[in-house]
Amino acid sequence: MKLTGQHFIAGRRTASATETFQAINPANSETLDVPFAEADATEIDEALIAADEAYDALQTASSATIAGLLEAIADGLESVGEVLLERAHAETALPMGRLTGERGRTCNQTRIFADMARNELWRQPRIDEGDPARVPPKPDVRTMLFGVGPVVVFGASNFPLAISVAGTDTISALAARCPVVVKAHPAHPGTCEIIASVITAAVEESGLPAGTFSMVHGKTNRTGAELVQHDKVAAVAFTGSLQGGRALFDAVNQRKNPVPFYGEMGSLNPVFLLPGALELRSDEIASGLIQSVNLGVGQFCTNPGAVLGVEGVHLDAFLSAVKDAAEDVAPATMLHPGIHAAFEQGQQRIASVEGINRVGSSGQPPIADSHQATCNIYESDVSQIGKQEVSEEVFGPSSIVFKCQSTDQMIEYARSLDGHLTATIHGTDQDLKDNAALVRILQRKVGRIVFNGFPTGIEVCNAMHHGGPYPATTHSYFTSIGHHSIYRFTKPVCFQGFPDSCLPAQLKQVDVPASASGCPTP
Amino acid sequence: MKLTGQHFIAGRRTASATETFQAINPANSETLDVPFAEADATEIDEALIAADEAYDALQTASSATIAGLLEAIADGLESVGEVLLERAHAETALPMGRLTGERGRTCNQTRIFADMARNELWRQPRIDEGDPARVPPKPDVRTMLFGVGPVVVFGASNFPLAISVAGTDTISALAARCPVVVKAHPAHPGTCEIIASVITAAVEESGLPAGTFSMVHGKTNRTGAELVQHDKVAAVAFTGSLQGGRALFDAVNQRKNPVPFYGEMGSLNPVFLLPGALELRSDEIASGLIQSVNLGVGQFCTNPGAVLGVEGVHLDAFLSAVKDAAEDVAPATMLHPGIHAAFEQGQQRIASVEGINRVGSSGQPPIADSHQATCNIYESDVSQIGKQEVSEEVFGPSSIVFKCQSTDQMIEYARSLDGHLTATIHGTDQDLKDNAALVRILQRKVGRIVFNGFPTGIEVCNAMHHGGPYPATTHSYFTSIGHHSIYRFTKPVCFQGFPDSCLPAQLKQVDVPASASGCPTP
Repeated sequence: MKLTGQHFIAGRRTASATETFQAINPANSETLDVPFAEADATEIDEALIAADEAYDALQTASSATIAGLLEAIADGLESVGEVLLERAHAETALPMGRLTGERGRTCNQTRIFADMARNELWRQPRIDEGDPARVPPKPDVRTMLFGVGPVVVFGASNFPLAISVAGTDTISALAARCPVVVKAHPAHPGTCEIIASVITAAVEESGLPAGTFSMVHGKTNRTGAELVQHDKVAAVAFTGSLQGGRALFDAVNQRKNPVPFYGEMGSLNPVFLLPGALELRSDEIASGLIQSVNLGVGQFCTNPGAVLGVEGVHLDAFLSAVKDAAEDVAPATMLHPGIHAAFEQGQQRIASVEGINRVGSSGQPPIADSHQATCNIYESDVSQIGKQEVSEEVFGPSSIVFKCQSTDQMIEYARSLDGHLTATIHGTDQDLKDNAALVRILQRKVGRIVFNGFPTGIEVCNAMHHGGPYPATTHSYFTSIGHHSIYRFTKPVCFQGFPDSCLPAQLKQVDVPASASGCPTP
Repeated sequence: MKLTGQHFIAGRRTASATETFQAINPANSETLDVPFAEADATEIDEALIAADEAYDALQTASSATIAGLLEAIADGLESVGEVLLERAHAETALPMGRLTGERGRTCNQTRIFADMARNELWRQPRIDEGDPARVPPKPDVRTMLFGVGPVVVFGASNFPLAISVAGTDTISALAARCPVVVKAHPAHPGTCEIIASVITAAVEESGLPAGTFSMVHGKTNRTGAELVQHDKVAAVAFTGSLQGGRALFDAVNQRKNPVPFYGEMGSLNPVFLLPGALELRSDEIASGLIQSVNLGVGQFCTNPGAVLGVEGVHLDAFLSAVKDAAEDVAPATMLHPGIHAAFEQGQQRIASVEGINRVGSSGQPPIADSHQATCNIYESDVSQIGKQEVSEEVFGPSSIVFKCQSTDQMIEYARSLDGHLTATIHGTDQDLKDNAALVRILQRKVGRIVFNGFPTGIEVCNAMHHGGPYPATTHSYFTSIGHHSIYRFTKPVCFQGFPDSCLPAQLKQVDVPASASGCPTP
């Protein structure tokens, strides 16, 4: 597939701007093929007007059509072949094996949302039948969910397939019958173009309006700001850094008519090592931690950045095992030069704090000009934990082990936490029972609590919740991974006093008896 | 009951400030008894720290305790007797009959949430069982909803009982096990004090921590801003004007760690008169409209402020019937001098637009110094509809009838709408079928579509959705009335790999087989 560097605007490849940028192979610093156009205001306007106009046809399409669109996208991502993985590999340095697995996950979740589009259980119909005999008469009230309107999606650099152009945000929005305008990630624009061509072909094949999907390129903040401020936007989804997410969140909230903004911005993902676990399994936990810290070169939003344990021989044994495991980790190329530079700065920031010592590190040096990160594990007294230098997420293979005097000190720290995507507890069942208060504190602070496991690696399923209070996300009710991510792009509509013949199918008397009207009546 | 003018901070009556304000009887401009204290930063801090500390006990309390608290509040609102209604009448000029009905609704909805607190179906448990044999092993993932933490509530002036200190916001937050800090409405502070004393007694009786409920008085913007900026706040609920709601929304979003803000800010609630309905029932619709416009002296957030019909003899007949019906409406006292002044300004603003004419008005003049509003109905060509002067909500008994050339022009207007709480359609079943496109447009724009009825008067039920895109509310997914209002104050927590013995009851294997795990699996 020959890349063009153009946008896809309602099925049309176009690029009017003179401003361009190119992707860089982070493994060798080489500039990759074709210049990509920076979208201008006219192109953004065209994409969103087409999306707005496509909305109505998406509402009247059959569920089979929507499901078919999503299945065609999954099929297309498979049939486009190795060209996709090879370009993604060149743009991100992620290994081919990992990208093959990520494509599998991407197609799998796309087919999950195809099923959801077909069965439409996400509509969650609720019916309260009227009673004309009541004084005053009780109206007939029926409510179900609808797509909110055009959704703007900003994908992540660390999952160029599963959280990018055809990632959960796009796919769940389409399943909810929302048109989508994607801002391509400037670190993997070629990967984005290949995926956009797959989606554009699937839309064309479906018979739905071309405005159902658009994708624009852009590297500047202006492009993102113009997208989220456009008056046809009904919701925005973003996965990325706190700084980028907050800037867009602020831009959306400064609109005359603000819309829902769903930012997933990562977190520290603290790990609590309770005494029983350290006594029984310090080596196993150390090796699991190093594996988790280094998964995808540490470039996971669920990467465990802080570990807490109680001082003593078992924590010492754990630290010794951590040191050994870290030495075996080879330096590896990060996603792009910017992330690598931020990682190096973060390491310098941590190392500059008095009382924080490096206890383990990769046993070999990084290769020059290949943007490789070296795994670093630090230790520190827990008294350092509140410091600005250590409380911010460092995106990459790094973690700090904080030594506490007691589990009470761990609990005190838990109380002071901001929002995080996950927290992890290692312990025996008895440890967990003895520290029920810790679990209750974490329930307020995080979206997912992992017991005797590691937070990296998210199961895509109905019960998954990938969210958390700010700064993990901008709204703790919603998830950005799993079946329930669809609810971000829906709004209830209540029909009062409608004749049965004019109600949507799911709300009609004949199809949905009140006794089976969806969500449990609270 | 003797009023004190003090705050209730975690069960304690206190007032340290020297700054005070007094309520005014809008019917006669007399100042009502006792000065009320303006809360200072220390008192706000005390209330929120006590709320934060109460959170944990609310999580471990039995469902019977939470339900019992809510039932005691409902019982207390009844047993406190006429003193509550009399004070509310003096502070708001709402008739005793209306207030008696509103108390009934308030107690009724409190008992609905008591049932929800008892059955805890709002937890919406979701279970994905693990599969250790899968490659890679599938983790056990279980999720349910928890209360988010301390909730700050700003009640409305127009429902001193049902949307105030013991209104849906407070009651649904308590049902979700969230501590609540209420900002008393400065237009009915005595009513607020009586209700707060009922809630405080109910909390004491329940054995729950006193910090479960606090209420502070305040008339200045400073008090509200300090409340929503406090770092222990987990969510904010507001019902009131667009100006006030937007100011608080902005303050919340400018926090270092923003939290969910749920503002319900009213809307124009357009009414579409389709040709068949006008032909058959112009008199009946006119009389229904005038009744709806004047319900509660027009002080309903669902008050119909714009009416659209196609020019012709039937619309003329409708306007003539509107004129007659409006003449029979006696001027009536508004909630407080500020709302009355804003209404008068709004009337002048509308009347100043060239081409807008008054077609109907109360047949008698308002009584001096009693802040009475006169019902005014205007007519205009639809070309005026986009003008700033007429597109803003006028809170009070006023509405504008816009004459269209065709139903296409109505649909064009519908497309241009911002968010509204409701839209209403009058028509025959055939009209509704012929205008399915209008319904689909309105689905994006409003939270509730009423057919052959009027938007005022909201049924408190499971299927009710009282919300809509901005500026109707600040988040179109959520409702502020009805059972589902509880979800504003919840967040999911996902438990991964937990032993059954340490899971919350609703997520245990023995209690909830996967086949009955709550919400339908999408």
